Amino acid sequence: MNYNQCWLNYSFIENYSDKDLLTELTVCVNENKNDIIIQNAINELTYALKNILGINVSCEYQDGTETEKVTTGIILKLLNDDNSKISEEGYRILQTGKTVRIEAKTGQGLLYGCFDLIRRIGQGLSVRGLDINENPKNNIRMLNHWDNMDGSIERGYSGKSFFFENDEILINERTKDYARLIASVGINATVINNVNVHKAATELITERYLGKLRTIADIFAGYGIKLFLSINFAAPIEIGGLPVSDPLDERVQNWWNDCVKKIYEYIPNFGGFLVKADSEGRPGPFTYGRTHADGANMLARALKPYGGLLIWRCFVYNCMQDWRDYKTDRAKAAYDNFIGLDGKFEDNVVLQIKNGPMDFQVREPVSPLFGGLKNTNMILEVQAAQEYTGQQIDVCYLIPMWKEVLNFETYAKEDGATVADIVSGRAYNQINCGMAAVSNTGNDFNWTGHDLAAANLYGFGRLAWNTELTSEQIALEWIKLTFPHKDKVIKTIFDILMKSWPVYEKYTSPLGIGWMVNPGSHYGPNVDGYEYDRWGTYHRADRNGLGVDRTVRSGTGYAGQYNEPNASMYENIETCPEELLLFFHYVRYDYKLKSGKTLIQHIYDTHFEGAEEVEKMVRDWEDLKGLIPDDVYMRCRERFYKQLENAREWRDRINTYFYRKSGVKDEKNRTIY
Amino acid sequence: MNYNQCWLNYSFIENYSDKDLLTELTVCVNENKNDIIIQNAINELTYALKNILGINVSCEYQDGTETEKVTTGIILKLLNDDNSKISEEGYRILQTGKTVRIEAKTGQGLLYGCFDLIRRIGQGLSVRGLDINENPKNNIRMLNHWDNMDGSIERGYSGKSFFFENDEILINERTKDYARLIASVGINATVINNVNVHKAATELITERYLGKLRTIADIFAGYGIKLFLSINFAAPIEIGGLPVSDPLDERVQNWWNDCVKKIYEYIPNFGGFLVKADSEGRPGPFTYGRTHADGANMLARALKPYGGLLIWRCFVYNCMQDWRDYKTDRAKAAYDNFIGLDGKFEDNVVLQIKNGPMDFQVREPVSPLFGGLKNTNMILEVQAAQEYTGQQIDVCYLIPMWKEVLNFETYAKEDGATVADIVSGRAYNQINCGMAAVSNTGNDFNWTGHDLAAANLYGFGRLAWNTELTSEQIALEWIKLTFPHKDKVIKTIFDILMKSWPVYEKYTSPLGIGWMVNPGSHYGPNVDGYEYDRWGTYHRADRNGLGVDRTVRSGTGYAGQYNEPNASMYENIETCPEELLLFFHYVRYDYKLKSGKTLIQHIYDTHFEGAEEVEKMVRDWEDLKGLIPDDVYMRCRERFYKQLENAREWRDRINTYFYRKSGVKDEKNRTIY
Repeated sequence: MNYNQCWLNYSFIENYSDKDLLTELTVCVNENKNDIIIQNAINELTYALKNILGINVSCEYQDGTETEKVTTGIILKLLNDDNSKISEEGYRILQTGKTVRIEAKTGQGLLYGCFDLIRRIGQGLSVRGLDINENPKNNIRMLNHWDNMDGSIERGYSGKSFFFENDEILINERTKDYARLIASVGINATVINNVNVHKAATELITERYLGKLRTIADIFAGYGIKLFLSINFAAPIEIGGLPVSDPLDERVQNWWNDCVKKIYEYIPNFGGFLVKADSEGRPGPFTYGRTHADGANMLARALKPYGGLLIWRCFVYNCMQDWRDYKTDRAKAAYDNFIGLDGKFEDNVVLQIKNGPMDFQVREPVSPLFGGLKNTNMILEVQAAQEYTGQQIDVCYLIPMWKEVLNFETYAKEDGATVADIVSGRAYNQINCGMAAVSNTGNDFNWTGHDLAAANLYGFGRLAWNTELTSEQIALEWIKLTFPHKDKVIKTIFDILMKSWPVYEKYTSPLGIGWMVNPGSHYGPNVDGYEYDRWGTYHRADRNGLGVDRTVRSGTGYAGQYNEPNASMYENIETCPEELLLFFHYVRYDYKLKSGKTLIQHIYDTHFEGAEEVEKMVRDWEDLKGLIPDDVYMRCRERFYKQLENAREWRDRINTYFYRKSGVKDEKNRTIY
Repeated sequence: MNYNQCWLNYSFIENYSDKDLLTELTVCVNENKNDIIIQNAINELTYALKNILGINVSCEYQDGTETEKVTTGIILKLLNDDNSKISEEGYRILQTGKTVRIEAKTGQGLLYGCFDLIRRIGQGLSVRGLDINENPKNNIRMLNHWDNMDGSIERGYSGKSFFFENDEILINERTKDYARLIASVGINATVINNVNVHKAATELITERYLGKLRTIADIFAGYGIKLFLSINFAAPIEIGGLPVSDPLDERVQNWWNDCVKKIYEYIPNFGGFLVKADSEGRPGPFTYGRTHADGANMLARALKPYGGLLIWRCFVYNCMQDWRDYKTDRAKAAYDNFIGLDGKFEDNVVLQIKNGPMDFQVREPVSPLFGGLKNTNMILEVQAAQEYTGQQIDVCYLIPMWKEVLNFETYAKEDGATVADIVSGRAYNQINCGMAAVSNTGNDFNWTGHDLAAANLYGFGRLAWNTELTSEQIALEWIKLTFPHKDKVIKTIFDILMKSWPVYEKYTSPLGIGWMVNPGSHYGPNVDGYEYDRWGTYHRADRNGLGVDRTVRSGTGYAGQYNEPNASMYENIETCPEELLLFFHYVRYDYKLKSGKTLIQHIYDTHFEGAEEVEKMVRDWEDLKGLIPDDVYMRCRERFYKQLENAREWRDRINTYFYRKSGVKDEKNRTIY
C-alpha cells in the first residue's frame, strides 16, 4: 500500500474528553444487518475508534424495538421511512445520558453519520450534548475524473490514473480507499473517465469493460457512490457501425437504448452519463443541425427507465476564433447556446455549468446561466484540479472561491436566489441538481501531489454537502484531521491556506483578466501566450491600458446576460467590483482605483506583494520543521520553493511587460527588468 | 519507386543543336575500367543522353594512348597525375572538331565532368567550342542530415528519414538515388545522423550497425561521397561502460582509438565524425573542465591514422539564460568560446561555424569567428532545411543569403579575406575546409516537401563547388533542369525564387532582430514567443522602440568582435547596414531611416508589402496552370496558399503588436487590429 490516506490517516489522541461515551456499539438495523454499506459504516467507525482513541468496540446487534433499553455507548439505528426531518441521505446524531445515537433512514445515512462522528472525534471535539440533524444541501455531489485509459490524466498533477492503465481498468486496494476517502466527505457520485472520450474509452460502455466496471460499481455502492461514465457522442458511429450519430435518427436512439440496457444488466445502480459535446473538437448534435436538447434528451430517454441521469456540459464555445475578431466573445457562449433551450430538457437531464463563463481562471464572474435558466436542472462545476491555479505546485485553497460563487446573488427570483439556492434545487423545487468538481487526485503517494491540495478535495465534499459551511470551518476541520494538534501547526497552515488564493491572484493575471499563462501547460506566466491565438482569451493590452470591454454600451454585450441589478453593476466601471474590472472594461493605466492607486501601480504593487507573501509562506512553512512529519514537511517544502520561483517569474514578467508597454515607472522604484 | 528525381528527372529536348557531337562515347581509363565510380559516370552519361536527347550511345573502351585518334563523339579520359591545372576532383571539358573531351585525374573528376555536361545539355545549352577547366573551390562540400533513428527528422519538412526507421538503417533504391542527386551537384560528404545523438544513434559506431553502414558507404563511394557520422561525446560512458568521457583520460582515448579502428575495418573510406558538444544539453568536455580543443583533439587523434576528419560544431552557448540578464549575449558565445583556442587544434580538426552568430535567422550578421580564427580549419554551416525561413511551406530561395555570407569581407588579412576565401582554405593555405548545409530532404515524393525548395539543395551543391556562381545563374540552371523550357515558366519561377527571401524577410521579423516565431515549432509569428525565455533571443521592444544594443559603447559589446572597419561600421547607428539595424541597436520607433520613413512606418510598410507580394506570387503561380505538370502545379499551389495565410498572420500580428506598443498610426490608414 504505497500511499497514505489523507485525512483518514488517523492519529492517536490522548486524553480525549468523551472516551467514556464511545466504548460500546449497538447496531439496530433489523434485516439489513448484512447490507454492505452498513457493514462498511460499522467498520469505519470501529477502525477509527481503535486508531484515534485506542478503543476496541465489539458490535452488538439488536432489534430496533429494543434500542430504547440501551443505556451506554454508540447506537446506530436505521429508522423507518416516516421521519420527515431526515432525508434519504441524512442522519441525526444525538448525545444524551451515556449514549451517542446515530440515526438514519438508509445505510448511506448511517455511513455519513459515522463519518461525521469520526470527524468530530478526529478533531478532538467534544460530542457531549450533541444534537444535530444533517441532510445534504445538494443531491448530486460528484467528482469528475479526467482520467484517460492510457493512464494519463488530463490536467492531472498528482501522478497517473488509479482507474486506468494501458487501456485496462485497474482494481486494487486503492479503489476501495478512494471510495472511503470521498464517501467520508459525502461525495455520492463519480465519473471515472475523462470528458474527452477517445479510443478505448469509447468502449467503456461495452461488454469489453462492463464486467470490471461492475466490480468497481459494487465497491463504490458499498460507500454510497454511484458510478457514471463519460461517453463519446459519436459512439454509434465509432463502435456501433452506424453511419451517423444524429440524435433524431431512430437507429441512433435504438443503439443507445440497447447500449444502456446492457449497462444496467451489469450495473443495476449505474448513475448515468456525462457528455461533452460540440466542444473543443468533440462530436455532438450540431453536426446534424440538432440542438443540445435533441442530443441530451435522446440519451436521457435511454437512461430514464433505469433511473439514470444524463449530465450535459455547457462548456460550448467557438475554439477557432480569430484574434482579430473583437466582436465574438467566448464569455457569452454558454449562455447564448443554452438559454433558448430552457425547459426543453427531459427531467433526468442535468446541465453542468462551470462556475465562470471562461474556464476556471483564478478570478471570473459567475456564469450568467445560473441566473438565466429557470426550468432546467443544473449542476455547478468547479475544478479542484489546479489547472490555472498553481497545478498543485503552488498552494491555492479554493474553497473561498467556490463560496463566493455559491453566495452570488443571481436575482433570478423576486425574493432572491443565490447560486447555492439554484444548484441545490431549492429555488425551483428540483431534485436532480448539485455540484461537481474536476478531481485533483492521482496515484501519487499523497493522492493530490501537494499535501495541502487535499484540502480542496476534502473541502469540495464538505461544501457540496453543506454549502453554508465557511471556508474557515472547512480549513480547520481538514487541518485538525490531517496534522498534529499543535497550535502553531494549526495556525500556520490555516493562515497559509486562507491567504493562498488571494496571494496566487496577486502574483498572476490582474483584476479578472485571466489567462496570461503558458499555452498548453497553463503553468507559469506568458502574457501574450494566448493573445494572438484562436481560443477567445484576450487581454487587449496596449500602451494606454488593458482589459476587455464587455459592456452592452460599447463592448461585447456580455454584461447584459446578467439579471438586474447585476447587469448595470458590471456595465458601469464605477460600480463594477474591482477584482473583475479588467474582465468587464478596458481600463487606462492611469485610471484611479478606489484605493487611490493607478491601475498600473496596482499591478506593480500586487505583484511585488504576491511574491513577498510567498517568501513569507516559505519561511512560515520552514518554521514547522520538526512539528509535523518529516516526509510531509520535505514534500511540501520542495513545492513551496517551486512556488516561490513561479511567483517571482510571474512578478517579473508581468511587471516588465506592463512597464515596457506603459512606460510608467514604479513609484517605489523597485526592480523591473 | 514512389518518388521523383528532382533535377535528374530528365525531359526530352527536341532539336538540340549539338546532338551530332554526342552520338559516340569513348572511354580511356586503362586499368580503371571496372572502377565503380567510372562505371557510374558512364551510366549517368548514357542514361542522360538517352532520356534528354534520345541517343543510345554504346561505350567503347580504348587505351589512353589511342585517344588522340578518336575523331568523333564524347571522350572520357583519365589523366595521369602531372596535370597541374586539374585538381583531384576537377575536370576539363574541351570541345574541338567533332569531339567533346572530358578529362580528369580521378573517377570522381570524370563523374563531375559528366554531370557538368549533362547539366549543359539538360538546359539546352550548346557545348560547341566549350573549353572549361573546373576545380572545386571547397574541398569539403557536405550535407548534414538531422535524421533520427526512429525515422523522424529534427527540423525536417519533407517527410520522414530515408536513412532510418525504427532504429534500423534503411537501404533501398532511394539510397543510390540520393547519392546520384547530391553527387550531380558536387557534394562529396554527408553526415546521415542528427547532431543530437541519442539512444540507438549512439550505437551507430558499433558492430550493431557497421555492417549496414558499410553497404551505404560503398554506395556513396560509387558517387564520390564520404560517409560521416555524428557521435555522442558521452559514448564511452553510455555504451563503453567507462565512468567518464573525459578527453584527457587515457581509457577514454583508448576507447575511441579502438572504436575508430573497428569503424575503419568495416569502412576503409570512412569520412570521420561530426560533434555537437556542450551545446543545448549535449555532453562535452566542459563536464570535465576540459576545453573544446581537448575534446576535439582526442577524437581527431583517433581518426588521424586513417585520414579521418573530426568536425566540431561551434554552436555553443548558454541555453539557460535569464531574460532579465541584459549583459549576457548569446551572439557573442561562439566567438568567446573558440577564439582563444585558435591554433590549438590538430590539423584534421575542422570547426563548423554557422553563418550567423545566432541560429539561421532570416537575417543575421556574419559570424565574427570567420574573421577571428587564423590557424584553424573552418567549415561554413548553412541551413537548407528552412527551420526559420518558412519550413518548406513558404518559398525561400536561400542562395542569395549564402552568397552575401560568402562575399562578406572579414578584413582578417591586410589584402582582405572574404568568408569564401577563408572557408575555401585559400586565405591561410588550408586543406580541410569547405561548406556544410543542414539538408532539407526527406522521404516525400519530391524529396524536399516544397518542389521549389529543391533549388536550395541544388544551389548549395553548386555554390559549394563554385562560390563565384551567382544566385541568378544557379536559379536559372535549376529551373531549366527541372521545368519545361517555356519562357513564361522560366521567367515566373525565376522571379518567384529571386524575390522569395526578400519577401519572406519583409513579412517576418524586421531589420535583423530575428526570432518572433512560435517557440518549439519555429513556424508562424509570435512576437513575444521567445522574449521571456531562456534562449538568449530577445527583441527588448517597449513603447518607445526595440532592438538589442550590441555596441561596445553602451551595449553587450558584440560589435567589437569584428575586425575594423566592420566593428566601427556596426557600432555606429549611422553606418550600420539598415537590414541589421535592430540586431545591433535599440532604435526608437520615430527614428528616421535612410528612406525617410520612421522605423515604425517601415515596419508597417514592409509587412503590408510582404503579404501583398505573396498574393502576387500566388497569382503568378496560378498563371502557370497547364504549362507545368499538374501534380507539381497542385502541390505547390497548396503550399502557396498556406504561405499566404502565414504571411497575413505575420503581417497582422507584427503590425498589431507594434501598433499597440507604439500607439503610432499607419500613415496610410490600413487595417491594423
